Amino acid sequence: MNVRGLAALIKNAPLTPYSFTRRELLPNDVAIDIKYAGICHSDIHQVREEWGGARFPMVPGHEIAGVVSAIGSSVSKFAVGDLIGVGVFIDSCRDCSSCNQGLEQYCEKGMTPTYNGVERDGVTPTMGGYCDGYVINENYAVKIPAGLDLAAVAPLLCAGITLYSPLKHWKAGPGKKVAVMGLGGLGHMGVKFAHALGAEVTVLSHSPSKEADARQLGADHFVVTSDPAQIKLNKRKFDLILNTVSAEHDINDYLSLLTTDGTLVVIGLPGVPFAVNADSLLSGRRSMAGSMIGGISELQEMLNFCGEKNIVSEIELISADYVNTAYERTVKSDVRFRFVIDIATL
Amino acid sequence: MNVRGLAALIKNAPLTPYSFTRRELLPNDVAIDIKYAGICHSDIHQVREEWGGARFPMVPGHEIAGVVSAIGSSVSKFAVGDLIGVGVFIDSCRDCSSCNQGLEQYCEKGMTPTYNGVERDGVTPTMGGYCDGYVINENYAVKIPAGLDLAAVAPLLCAGITLYSPLKHWKAGPGKKVAVMGLGGLGHMGVKFAHALGAEVTVLSHSPSKEADARQLGADHFVVTSDPAQIKLNKRKFDLILNTVSAEHDINDYLSLLTTDGTLVVIGLPGVPFAVNADSLLSGRRSMAGSMIGGISELQEMLNFCGEKNIVSEIELISADYVNTAYERTVKSDVRFRFVIDIATL
Repeated sequence: MNVRGLAALIKNAPLTPYSFTRRELLPNDVAIDIKYAGICHSDIHQVREEWGGARFPMVPGHEIAGVVSAIGSSVSKFAVGDLIGVGVFIDSCRDCSSCNQGLEQYCEKGMTPTYNGVERDGVTPTMGGYCDGYVINENYAVKIPAGLDLAAVAPLLCAGITLYSPLKHWKAGPGKKVAVMGLGGLGHMGVKFAHALGAEVTVLSHSPSKEADARQLGADHFVVTSDPAQIKLNKRKFDLILNTVSAEHDINDYLSLLTTDGTLVVIGLPGVPFAVNADSLLSGRRSMAGSMIGGISELQEMLNFCGEKNIVSEIELISADYVNTAYERTVKSDVRFRFVIDIATL
Repeated sequence: MNVRGLAALIKNAPLTPYSFTRRELLPNDVAIDIKYAGICHSDIHQVREEWGGARFPMVPGHEIAGVVSAIGSSVSKFAVGDLIGVGVFIDSCRDCSSCNQGLEQYCEKGMTPTYNGVERDGVTPTMGGYCDGYVINENYAVKIPAGLDLAAVAPLLCAGITLYSPLKHWKAGPGKKVAVMGLGGLGHMGVKFAHALGAEVTVLSHSPSKEADARQLGADHFVVTSDPAQIKLNKRKFDLILNTVSAEHDINDYLSLLTTDGTLVVIGLPGVPFAVNADSLLSGRRSMAGSMIGGISELQEMLNFCGEKNIVSEIELISADYVNTAYERTVKSDVRFRFVIDIATL
């Protein structure tokens, strides 16, 4: 299958037009006519090889929304014409304890990333979604419900599930006080989901200017974290804090906002370790946990929930020739709230 | 009530004989004829004012085992002659969310420590268990089952519950792989309890010389943490790790030993913050939590369990005039596994 897309040919190179081929359909494969691809901050880290071990040419993109264009001979889950989504991984070992629990993202042999990795044959490079086609095993793709803005669905496949999964795992819902640290591409999905799940939602932000957005997205409260008085007023308050902040910060300030048995979940990736005081955890049996995207069944559950509740991401839809500018703006957090590439403009 | 004991008169002073008085019995008070008092490492930190804000003269001791010698007019839980234990706190606000859940150790207004604190009147200093008598509200004391070595029961009131509570909270039991980091006064109780609860128990120690003790206490496996090959063999293995180590260490090495959804519980108090890599938590939805002693009802549950399973601490029983030497040896970890003062030798 011939595909046209955008690639970084070498480390740090701007994205440029790039054509390549994908495998012919295996019996359980579906082919996707990609319509939209979200830009995730991790795309930029990988294009710039900031996480090490990058493979070039690299076609980024793991927030993929499209339409099924063909199916293999044994496919049962999809039909041609179905709306289909692909997220951060396209395969896993299918046999470890994590895979067997539907937690493929924690596959003990490593999940197969949607791009910048290799297929399970150990040699075939994976190429992402900034292009017009994908071929994937049907069990690693999900159905997108009708009635949603398909462009704004794309970021759900990574940013959305990254917030939905911990909210569900740590039981956000009525009677629970949930705080979201940071109101960017990740955080704004946390606010939408926590609100839709019935929790009492607070946004913790250093920037007072974000209050109007926070409330419009569904936040009940807004705390300016640069104000020590507001921090003090919220000590021991939250059952769950989702930390999407990638800038360096003193995590103990935030752990102190957890009630007894509360959990702070790390989702963002600051480049430096967290300096955690033992006492911040001991004084209230608090937990600090990590969470990474979600498994395939949970991804489907989230999309179904989005269909019922009419939840999508807030996006700026861009044309393919704007991608390099969008990268610069993403690094500066100058985006409301997620860029999505209109693949028709390739 | 007149009491004879041992006190540090000023910071860093050796413990010397000291007499003082306790309050006359209130209606819900019981008076205790103290028989044994355990030495906890935290006693030394406080006598040396290493945690700040110490009050002198200080009578340390929060691992107290004795016999009820008198009861107030409204006491219903105890009778004269009953075996009785007192742990790390003797009161709490009785009205916050934590207290109402039986988690008085996390009282939102602060628990009242057994020594080196003040009663809830805000002024009366509390004096600990290195002495021959205590007066306490019956609801903050626990019954000690018959048939156990009373001297070896004393450390259960702090060291014991410190390990028992997280093992129960994080559901150690049959089918669960539990690791205990460090095999001192705390760790050895973790091994005994985890084994008695039916878990598969591993001791993680930098010191190969502790293997025989570990196995004798109930460990199924022993991992020498200074050997990278043994660490590597145990990656992603444990459901629960109890960290009793107070020396500085790289916590990421230990987080990597947790399976998906595993929890590492901090119990020891290194003087420096833990440097936690976000990825150590994200790659497996792992948690790092803290746990601090246990509530009164759980303390009673633990003692009942000890009575059924015949579990006590391993101790060196010492006379009162050996306390200062015992302190020096405790600092050097030269004790198997807990010193207990025979109060009859005062």
